[in-house]
Amino acid sequence: MKQFDVEVKVWLKPSVFDPQGHAVQGALVSLGFQEMGEVRIGKFIQMTIAAEDEQAAARQVEDMCQKVLANPVMETYAFDVKERGQ
Amino acid sequence: MKQFDVEVKVWLKPSVFDPQGHAVQGALVSLGFQEMGEVRIGKFIQMTIAAEDEQAAARQVEDMCQKVLANPVMETYAFDVKERGQ
Repeated sequence: MKQFDVEVKVWLKPSVFDPQGHAVQGALVSLGFQEMGEVRIGKFIQMTIAAEDEQAAARQVEDMCQKVLANPVMETYAFDVKERGQ
Repeated sequence: MKQFDVEVKVWLKPSVFDPQGHAVQGALVSLGFQEMGEVRIGKFIQMTIAAEDEQAAARQVEDMCQKVLANPVMETYAFDVKERGQ
């Protein structure tokens, strides 16, 4: 088995209101950052997994996203898989 | 002024215990994902800003990270700035 470093980004779909992002945007504007567009806040997940090869690692991460890491109704996700030491 | 799409990743420093990551790791293992290493969960922030050029946009985002988006004591951050339409 090989070791893989995985980075997963999970964010709300555009149609979903993001109260946390809205609050941060307000804070940024109040601190003087005037030229602000919308702010969206999601999850950034780092982990290490073991798998036979990169395809198997990607299938595993896809499965994790579908079952645990993301809510497919409201969220979108993307991930990177890199073999450790490569 | 030009429009820039910004992605910021914020994560806990290795020395800081991550209860959320620990809980997700437990959930993944209980769902049968056996070959799990540590799971770390941070923030993934997307936003649009306006600036004169890419350097000015990067300086602005650096300032935002230092003041609002990350806690320099416990967190590390990295960001990407892309001019819209490029």
